[in-house]
Amino acid sequence: MTYLLNSASDFSHEAVLGFAAANSQYVTAVHGGVVRSTQTPAGQPALVIGGGSGHYPAFAGWVGPGMGHGAPCGNIFSSPSASQVYSVARNAENGGGVLMGFGNYAGDVLHFGAAAEKLRAEGIDVRIIRVSDDIASNSRKNHRDRRGIAGDLPVFKIAGAVIEAGVDLDEAERIAWKANDATRSFGLAFDGCTLPGADEPLFHVPESTMGVGLGIHGEPGIRDIPMGTASEVADLLFEGILEEVPQEASGRVAVVLNGLGRVKYEELFVVYGRISERLAEAGLTAVQPEVGEFVTSLDMAGLSLTVVFLDEELERHWVAAADTPAYRRGELRDLPSMQDRAPRTEFYTPGEEKVPEASSESQATAASVQEVIELFARVCAENEGELGRLDAVAGDGDHGQGMVLGSRGAVDAGRAALERGAGARTVLLHAGTAWAESAGGTSGALWGSALTAAGGALSDETKADPDAAVQALLSGVEAVRRLGGAQPGDKTMVDAAAPFAADLQKQSQAGEDLGSALSSAAAIATEAAADTAELKARLGRSRVLGDKSLGTPDPGATSFALLMEALADHLKKDRG
Amino acid sequence: MTYLLNSASDFSHEAVLGFAAANSQYVTAVHGGVVRSTQTPAGQPALVIGGGSGHYPAFAGWVGPGMGHGAPCGNIFSSPSASQVYSVARNAENGGGVLMGFGNYAGDVLHFGAAAEKLRAEGIDVRIIRVSDDIASNSRKNHRDRRGIAGDLPVFKIAGAVIEAGVDLDEAERIAWKANDATRSFGLAFDGCTLPGADEPLFHVPESTMGVGLGIHGEPGIRDIPMGTASEVADLLFEGILEEVPQEASGRVAVVLNGLGRVKYEELFVVYGRISERLAEAGLTAVQPEVGEFVTSLDMAGLSLTVVFLDEELERHWVAAADTPAYRRGELRDLPSMQDRAPRTEFYTPGEEKVPEASSESQATAASVQEVIELFARVCAENEGELGRLDAVAGDGDHGQGMVLGSRGAVDAGRAALERGAGARTVLLHAGTAWAESAGGTSGALWGSALTAAGGALSDETKADPDAAVQALLSGVEAVRRLGGAQPGDKTMVDAAAPFAADLQKQSQAGEDLGSALSSAAAIATEAAADTAELKARLGRSRVLGDKSLGTPDPGATSFALLMEALADHLKKDRG
Repeated sequence: MTYLLNSASDFSHEAVLGFAAANSQYVTAVHGGVVRSTQTPAGQPALVIGGGSGHYPAFAGWVGPGMGHGAPCGNIFSSPSASQVYSVARNAENGGGVLMGFGNYAGDVLHFGAAAEKLRAEGIDVRIIRVSDDIASNSRKNHRDRRGIAGDLPVFKIAGAVIEAGVDLDEAERIAWKANDATRSFGLAFDGCTLPGADEPLFHVPESTMGVGLGIHGEPGIRDIPMGTASEVADLLFEGILEEVPQEASGRVAVVLNGLGRVKYEELFVVYGRISERLAEAGLTAVQPEVGEFVTSLDMAGLSLTVVFLDEELERHWVAAADTPAYRRGELRDLPSMQDRAPRTEFYTPGEEKVPEASSESQATAASVQEVIELFARVCAENEGELGRLDAVAGDGDHGQGMVLGSRGAVDAGRAALERGAGARTVLLHAGTAWAESAGGTSGALWGSALTAAGGALSDETKADPDAAVQALLSGVEAVRRLGGAQPGDKTMVDAAAPFAADLQKQSQAGEDLGSALSSAAAIATEAAADTAELKARLGRSRVLGDKSLGTPDPGATSFALLMEALADHLKKDRG
Repeated sequence: MTYLLNSASDFSHEAVLGFAAANSQYVTAVHGGVVRSTQTPAGQPALVIGGGSGHYPAFAGWVGPGMGHGAPCGNIFSSPSASQVYSVARNAENGGGVLMGFGNYAGDVLHFGAAAEKLRAEGIDVRIIRVSDDIASNSRKNHRDRRGIAGDLPVFKIAGAVIEAGVDLDEAERIAWKANDATRSFGLAFDGCTLPGADEPLFHVPESTMGVGLGIHGEPGIRDIPMGTASEVADLLFEGILEEVPQEASGRVAVVLNGLGRVKYEELFVVYGRISERLAEAGLTAVQPEVGEFVTSLDMAGLSLTVVFLDEELERHWVAAADTPAYRRGELRDLPSMQDRAPRTEFYTPGEEKVPEASSESQATAASVQEVIELFARVCAENEGELGRLDAVAGDGDHGQGMVLGSRGAVDAGRAALERGAGARTVLLHAGTAWAESAGGTSGALWGSALTAAGGALSDETKADPDAAVQALLSGVEAVRRLGGAQPGDKTMVDAAAPFAADLQKQSQAGEDLGSALSSAAAIATEAAADTAELKARLGRSRVLGDKSLGTPDPGATSFALLMEALADHLKKDRG
């Protein structure tokens, strides 16, 4: 259990502050997490690694020369919010763009993705590496769809070393994915962990059994089997990994034997003794193996084995120097000496940033944009009940409420920016961030990113002409597709947004004026949203969702269509 | 609990082998523990740190440049045996002598001490630093009698750095003691740990309470108080330490917040956040604090705060570079680069050492010595029952058995050495080691050291004259006093051995022949042993031990007197 806390709600934040206080030569706490406390070379890509708290040393413990540049720290086992990720990335970025790294979980994909949209809208190049090493969570051919567990360590270690070696963002991204594709992990759980303030563990493994295929957020294993000896456990883990040795493997491997929190070091060493024998039998050479606690899950009892099939390039970066609070290895003289690490003195804090200067033309556009945001808020409020009803059929019924909270937050932020003289671009960036923060959840992140990306397509200098308006709308839709990763037919907002964008582009290229093009596209969106009811039945999802879902349109597609219809009407009235 | 093991009895040994396999660039397993796998500079003192297993990273995790040279690894929470310590120290020593470091526990004092006696007998200079940082275990004025907990980390860190900086053994010993005298720790337990193979924890702390003043061998706290918040816990620990701030403190402190195993990192950071506030309020500056798991106790739930009150010298060595499997800090470019660390290829293994060449005169003395050892074994066998009976009154009744097993082991080892042509010195060294190994326990270590030290006073070249024989006997008694740390009147073997040695020396200096001098001294020993019955009653120990103990002489003093009487008779017969 968690023995030491002041309050459950402040736990993660207090932990970050205490961590930064104890490691001030390496890190400084900023809004949302930590960044290096020392200057990084200008133009060096920034490796921003993170996820929920409760996994220390992952991820904040790995911030320092040769490894991470910053770590957003969410609540226990929860993704950091987009604004946390954005803040840490803004602080870590120093002209070379950002490589974001996180374990492949829906929440992290969404919130890191939303932050990436905002950074891109501001002109910062962002790449994303989703670690997906857990072989128990998906099939071999879907390796990139697996979830991330202790593979975080070697993937981020290698990515950090490559960046330290002086490569650009393209190359850093390439090698990070290559490392992930070469990494396999397999784990076992013996007992669950207890969240701060909770009385009971998240799960118990039945006595004398072990859960095969653990997760690192207190997920139990996928199946329970009888408890084994240390050697049997080593064999089980090793043989699981061995099934995925690549054809072209060099025979040299990075190995991480990771304790989740309550399986202690001596136990891990007993297991590693057997694993080292099995490696030798299999003709595999372990290169500087790591045995200890790297990606924990509070006080969960469990362990995992990670193997990276190395080639010369990956090996070089695996053994390279890293100097961070919780992970130091390699020939540290290859890094800047401690005296040569100049302290950083300026940090970005949200709310303290200046509103960029804007032309009066862009300020006029901004006022029109703000009208649209306020229109959206009214439409959301009018339809809150209906959207909630649609969502309750298949989801948790909070879609209407989320849209209301998000759009209201956007209205307030947009108005505040407008009052400070912001242009169209800045109003939308502020409104988008506020929508995501105020709404939370998936639709909040998607709508926030849509507004942010739309803003990125505009400028604070020039008046937005109809072409720019179309471009902004298309950018917003594209951000939703990129972030949500959904395809048309998946029964999401994209089912309405994709045909909307296609039609808007077609009408616009055909020379239709903005109002007409938008009317046509909005009508198509409405039709597509209605069709999602049919789609759902056709996909057979009613079997999962129960009969009630038959004939119910998707709430996300519906709200999208509603807002686009309102926007089209608004533009017609403007002209009229 | 311990989840992963093959067999409880092999657990510690398997853990050492797995640890060495995972960290071959740093350490190599030898008999009894691990030593550095790379060459150390000739003439550099060797820091040999150890204790029981179950405390990782302490102690094996700290072997490498800038810190330990070797770590004997006992069973879980048990001191390594003298032969383990000896083997590791022999392997670690490279011409500069040995600084042994361990937590101040009776078993470690005894077994490290016995190994030190043997090394000294072989001409190797050995110093000992007993870490005694736990303020809960004794009063401030008895600081050096306190037990050692997480203070092991800074004391060994500082000692290792001093040695790396190039000092000799005198200076290393001086600074190590200075570090220990400046170090204070205080801990709390929330739940006990479970030994490998056991079903139940060593103890439970009552629900909603915490045990103040934990030990690191599964000892519960000294008293239980209501469970506090993280800040209250921080305050309690800090205020405990604050009571012992030295007058001359510089205001700069090394701080270690140590988790015992199941209190995890985020919790420790929450506590550290508060401690850092309290440090600032008290005008204390934390120099590179450490928050994590350093001296664990398997999966025990607990934590401790360690503070070292630094001066310039201690601070310099606290922040200096160390590069070990589990502890890397400081400017590592100050250490030899990894490529420059030549692998070691030759190691000492017990049983493989050659018997040194001996003169025929010394071989003749050796035969006489072997007769005495065989005599001792007969006397022990004859008195086994009586010695057991005496011991059962106050102890566990195994003194008779221990004396029999020890003396038999000594007979076998002495005979084997004799057959390989050993001189008097070597016969006694081998016999002493075997006595300690075969007997185990306190009396085994003391008698083993006595024989070893006696051997150290003789040579393999010359015949032992009566003066040399007296010197050997006095050295043996002196080793017992040094190792056991007992004073006359403490009701131990020393009560008989000390007056024996005093009389033997007096008679011998007065020109008495060996046989007469020994007869006189043995009679005094017998009288003194008998007196221990009286002593015990006078000391009021009968209250503790129960009425049965009234009038019972101490078994250790008794067996000493018995053997000395037999030796005196034997010499008389020889002359007769």
